[in-house]
Amino acid sequence: MRITAVIMAGGKGERFWPRSRTHLPKQFLSLTADRETMIQKTVGRLKGIAEPEDIFIVTNKMYADLVSEQLPFIPKENVLLEPCGRNTAPCIALAAAVIEKKYGEETIMLVLPSDHLIRYEEMYADTLRQAVAVAESGQRLVTIGITPAYPETGYGYIQFGRDSDLGMHGVYKVKRFVEKPDIDTAKEYLASRKYLWNSGMFVWKTGTILENMEKFMPEVYSTACNIAEHFGQEDFEAVLSEKYENMPSESVDFGIMEKADEIYTIPGSFGWDDVGNWLAVERINSTNDLGNYVEGDVITIGTEHSTICGGKRLIAAVGIENIIVVDTDDAILICAKDHTQDVKKVIENLKICNRAALL
Amino acid sequence: MRITAVIMAGGKGERFWPRSRTHLPKQFLSLTADRETMIQKTVGRLKGIAEPEDIFIVTNKMYADLVSEQLPFIPKENVLLEPCGRNTAPCIALAAAVIEKKYGEETIMLVLPSDHLIRYEEMYADTLRQAVAVAESGQRLVTIGITPAYPETGYGYIQFGRDSDLGMHGVYKVKRFVEKPDIDTAKEYLASRKYLWNSGMFVWKTGTILENMEKFMPEVYSTACNIAEHFGQEDFEAVLSEKYENMPSESVDFGIMEKADEIYTIPGSFGWDDVGNWLAVERINSTNDLGNYVEGDVITIGTEHSTICGGKRLIAAVGIENIIVVDTDDAILICAKDHTQDVKKVIENLKICNRAALL
Repeated sequence: MRITAVIMAGGKGERFWPRSRTHLPKQFLSLTADRETMIQKTVGRLKGIAEPEDIFIVTNKMYADLVSEQLPFIPKENVLLEPCGRNTAPCIALAAAVIEKKYGEETIMLVLPSDHLIRYEEMYADTLRQAVAVAESGQRLVTIGITPAYPETGYGYIQFGRDSDLGMHGVYKVKRFVEKPDIDTAKEYLASRKYLWNSGMFVWKTGTILENMEKFMPEVYSTACNIAEHFGQEDFEAVLSEKYENMPSESVDFGIMEKADEIYTIPGSFGWDDVGNWLAVERINSTNDLGNYVEGDVITIGTEHSTICGGKRLIAAVGIENIIVVDTDDAILICAKDHTQDVKKVIENLKICNRAALL
Repeated sequence: MRITAVIMAGGKGERFWPRSRTHLPKQFLSLTADRETMIQKTVGRLKGIAEPEDIFIVTNKMYADLVSEQLPFIPKENVLLEPCGRNTAPCIALAAAVIEKKYGEETIMLVLPSDHLIRYEEMYADTLRQAVAVAESGQRLVTIGITPAYPETGYGYIQFGRDSDLGMHGVYKVKRFVEKPDIDTAKEYLASRKYLWNSGMFVWKTGTILENMEKFMPEVYSTACNIAEHFGQEDFEAVLSEKYENMPSESVDFGIMEKADEIYTIPGSFGWDDVGNWLAVERINSTNDLGNYVEGDVITIGTEHSTICGGKRLIAAVGIENIIVVDTDDAILICAKDHTQDVKKVIENLKICNRAALL
């Protein structure tokens, strides 16, 4: 069965300000020493799983040039340009309808975020292959779960049954999807050993997801099919641009996964990181003896456990601890590690002050 | 009696890196919100005391242009250009010899550092006038002392006798000058109430200081007189440039004040600040409700007791406390307040790495 991949790349990634901007969100940034961008890594990990001509990118119109610059080998028609963000359900419905039109309903679809990081790529590939096997075996929705390491309140969770009725090793039946919990609930989930983190990675056949879309999100389904009718034609972009706005903004988790049956999960143990904010940079790179991650022209004196991302200027860090410094041509962020969630307040302020050039 | 002033402006001021540089030391920087530079303030404070044509600047050759830019009203011949730094004794000897040549030995000389700050300028002027009166009344060396506020180990101290034999109110006889003490000694000095800080401001007649120079530093004296012979002549700069290097490097405190008799001190209570490092900036400016001093384009979120001096870029400070941030075109300093003494280590590193452009 043909394996296609849909990379969801429409996110704004405000939490990596000042490196990420409206015109350059996180998925198009390099946050690792190897200088590859997040989306390049995401696509690179599919080597041996999906061919470049079978990789589809759904992103905002604004990022069309970034996609063609960073992923020049992806066919232009595979880049689906949203006129506006409508969360994951419309994005997935559109991609599924397009892929079904191109390859038929018996086509595997890997649905992947564009801005996560995977440490153990071989294990990741093995997990995807196993998910493909489950998806191929019937009208099944497969989601990749992540074994929780701590009671995170920023992710959705998946409750799983300990035994799968499929008889396949390492595959579990999903009992339910739950949204981001409060801290006490997250602690219960962790203690119960019956929950996984929802990584937002899904595997299914186009026919399976579209059937579920028709059932649970009929409006999204029909709009997606209407748009996909024009795929490969000259007016596709115009039709997409016109009709996509009418889609409701909804996540696939809420719109489909919380309602559908026959959902399976495969717990991934491949070193997943959602790279949620600047704190992640020291996790996904290596730190020195003093616990610092440093890039660019940086002098540190008596500085520990800090992340310093230099730009074109020298940064001299003297006596600081647990601080994140990010320099760019027009803005510098200096942020205490325990205040990374407040970077969005800087962005709010810039919006209020109409300082679009800095957003 | 004519009152002249000698502003000593040869210092390097490395502690204000990255704003201060080899080609732009602290005395030529503005560190206050009014945008006046330290040396402009120093000269400005002499209004009503010394006329511009009677103000002399001793500085390094390198800073000749800075002096003429910042103090265009000072006659060019009053700017004495050292080919190299030789501490305060040769600098003062030269200025004294030049002024004596121009105006005779019965001329008052105020000797003032160029990079200190005075909060109460009227009281300062009154103190100087009183010092002038003492200096005029005989062959007396007068120094302005500062009532210590805490056991500072970075200043020299002046031990004074409680009663002056002059019978002038507020004037005390100096028992001895002492160099920078260790912390225990500084605490003893403070507790004894018999010591003042040595501010490095002196008042005397040219004849008085030159007499003492001849007695205690005959070599410095004769070189200074030899150079001053040429003052007002075409070859003055060349002679100064050639002979000044032969001077020994010595402070007036060690070379004269610790040895001479007839020294008096007037305790100043005019809000003196030596503006010794970046910590001073919040003292000499006003801080906001959160204890921050901020200049330039700065957004603060959850930031307290910090000093943030912006340059051309936006600085976003999130969740930081007790941090000093200084941005310039080619370097940014981020320094914990309790590590300001380590800024010099940055400079050492830059020297070792031959990064002259940043020094």
